[in-house]
Amino acid sequence: MAPSETSQLRIALDAMGGDNAPFSVLKGADFACQKYKNVNFLLFGDQSKINPILEKLPALQKVSSVIHTDKVVTNEDKPSAAIRQGRDSSMGMAIKAVHDGTADGIVSSGNTGALMAIAKITLRTLPGIDRPAIATAYPTMRGRCIVLDLGANVECDANNLFQFAVMGDAFAHAVLQVERPSIGLLNVGSEEAKGNEVVKAAASMLKENGLKLNYYGHVEGDDITKGTVDVVVSDGFSGNISLKTAEGTAHMFSHFLKMAFKSSWISKLGYLLARPALKKVFNALDPRQHNGAMFLGLNGIVVKSHGGTDEVGFANAIGVAVELITHKINEQITKEIEISHRNGHQKMPELASATSKN
Amino acid sequence: MAPSETSQLRIALDAMGGDNAPFSVLKGADFACQKYKNVNFLLFGDQSKINPILEKLPALQKVSSVIHTDKVVTNEDKPSAAIRQGRDSSMGMAIKAVHDGTADGIVSSGNTGALMAIAKITLRTLPGIDRPAIATAYPTMRGRCIVLDLGANVECDANNLFQFAVMGDAFAHAVLQVERPSIGLLNVGSEEAKGNEVVKAAASMLKENGLKLNYYGHVEGDDITKGTVDVVVSDGFSGNISLKTAEGTAHMFSHFLKMAFKSSWISKLGYLLARPALKKVFNALDPRQHNGAMFLGLNGIVVKSHGGTDEVGFANAIGVAVELITHKINEQITKEIEISHRNGHQKMPELASATSKN
Repeated sequence: MAPSETSQLRIALDAMGGDNAPFSVLKGADFACQKYKNVNFLLFGDQSKINPILEKLPALQKVSSVIHTDKVVTNEDKPSAAIRQGRDSSMGMAIKAVHDGTADGIVSSGNTGALMAIAKITLRTLPGIDRPAIATAYPTMRGRCIVLDLGANVECDANNLFQFAVMGDAFAHAVLQVERPSIGLLNVGSEEAKGNEVVKAAASMLKENGLKLNYYGHVEGDDITKGTVDVVVSDGFSGNISLKTAEGTAHMFSHFLKMAFKSSWISKLGYLLARPALKKVFNALDPRQHNGAMFLGLNGIVVKSHGGTDEVGFANAIGVAVELITHKINEQITKEIEISHRNGHQKMPELASATSKN
Repeated sequence: MAPSETSQLRIALDAMGGDNAPFSVLKGADFACQKYKNVNFLLFGDQSKINPILEKLPALQKVSSVIHTDKVVTNEDKPSAAIRQGRDSSMGMAIKAVHDGTADGIVSSGNTGALMAIAKITLRTLPGIDRPAIATAYPTMRGRCIVLDLGANVECDANNLFQFAVMGDAFAHAVLQVERPSIGLLNVGSEEAKGNEVVKAAASMLKENGLKLNYYGHVEGDDITKGTVDVVVSDGFSGNISLKTAEGTAHMFSHFLKMAFKSSWISKLGYLLARPALKKVFNALDPRQHNGAMFLGLNGIVVKSHGGTDEVGFANAIGVAVELITHKINEQITKEIEISHRNGHQKMPELASATSKN
């Protein structure tokens, strides 16, 4: 279980995914290979576009192989179409490399729905996991917090939420380096009686989890940024709305601040004086620093980078993949799910029947 | 329908509700009565605590009557207990005044669950409305946006969401003064095929609404602060999580900013120079300026003020009540719901069967 920092890792990159591909992908990989000395890259995509950039990035070139394909999954492609036609695209081939064992993980900035669909069909879910979930680390007032699911499952039952908790625990352990991460269920109130039937049933399962899970109880939306717990578990509907609301609120705040600083020469001067300190804040809350959401629960490491990110953001997404591979997150998840099955803490009929349609 | 600014309004205040009651309630009412010259107040609560404060607020005293009760609903009281024991509390009596027609509306900073429970049982819902919803105005980059439901209903069906849209339309018309407010359904993506069955069914109902509703389509969490639409409709589970996440994110941003400005003398100087401009931003985003959530759909105007707010926030909550009473919001809602029933746009069996368990 100890991180094996020195062993060689092979990461497949969908070089053609994202708004600024392949430049931001390659430049991001170049940043990452200077930070992680043990990483090799498989670059999937159009070699006529990749090679000219790669020639200018000798450090990356040294640790990379280019696998050519001129097919690309676009942002407009529906998941169903991507499954049918996307297998020999840069995204599809990169996922296939993980399936075949030629790569330890894949990072893509491409179409989220297509990535999930191809990854699910190619890699399948881990034993005992019914549905994969999207997880990422949010900035909080106390550090970082893992939130899942962020939109893979708009309808969840109590078993799904329980499995998300197990996966979130392993993710937090790997990424936040917390020994026994505390886990909260996202709800409309912290009292035990609050919430819908699915959340209440999941709470019962988590309270008597038979694992080492450190279950905290219900948490509310503002507990995420308070850093009340290390892991926040939600269905994908509310989780996605929460993530997007947080992004929107942070964006509005920055927007108004910039306007204020620009509103007069004296405010501009004030900004110049406070800039070094303010930069620290903006860096800490910079979405690029928190880029890289994992599709947890698949039989392979799949990290989704934001489509609009730049090389700094992409390098961070690669960092997430490195941490998850190094910490063998899927072995941890599989082990905990096995224990929970042995202990009979899943698929309890009375609990599993509480199904969210949300 | 035209606002009748000059007619006298009577507002019942739960003088004992909230963390700083009765001081913040009375001081807030004093602020409000200087802004709204046509408002009289009925102050419900302990006269031994109210009168000493009131004597120092002559403008308020002139337009107020004190109705004594020494019973108070506390924050710890469960809604069921509040219904049984709270009728002769300051909250219960203030609601009763609206029921009896001696007040045009009530404002309380007390226990939300108790306020909703007593208000529902005393005032009942408007004809055609199945469930009341909690609505408030969020700050956005373009102004303000009405969001509902914020937590009254953790499980909703398509009919409920449709009714929330009608009520939100009337609320936006009254509070934002928008002729035909645009209405969005909160979802995990803007595409029509995205989301759960309840949202999709509600979207069908809204597209063919037979009313004057200006239905926009699906919106995401970040569309709230972008100001994409005037009204955002959600079930109470996701709506509450969204509101709390926004509050938490704004709080974290302010917290880090304050730390940055305090981190060195040169940052402090920068802050002092930029302060006038920054104050405008913080004022615009100040939760007190957006205080006052209405319990929409009840047969009477019930405005909930944040329990921890001060006199500035309480005065704003009174302002919300004044606007809603003046614009006869409940008459508008009733009229639109009647039309939708006549047009057969509600209770469609195939739609109503899509029930959220979330």
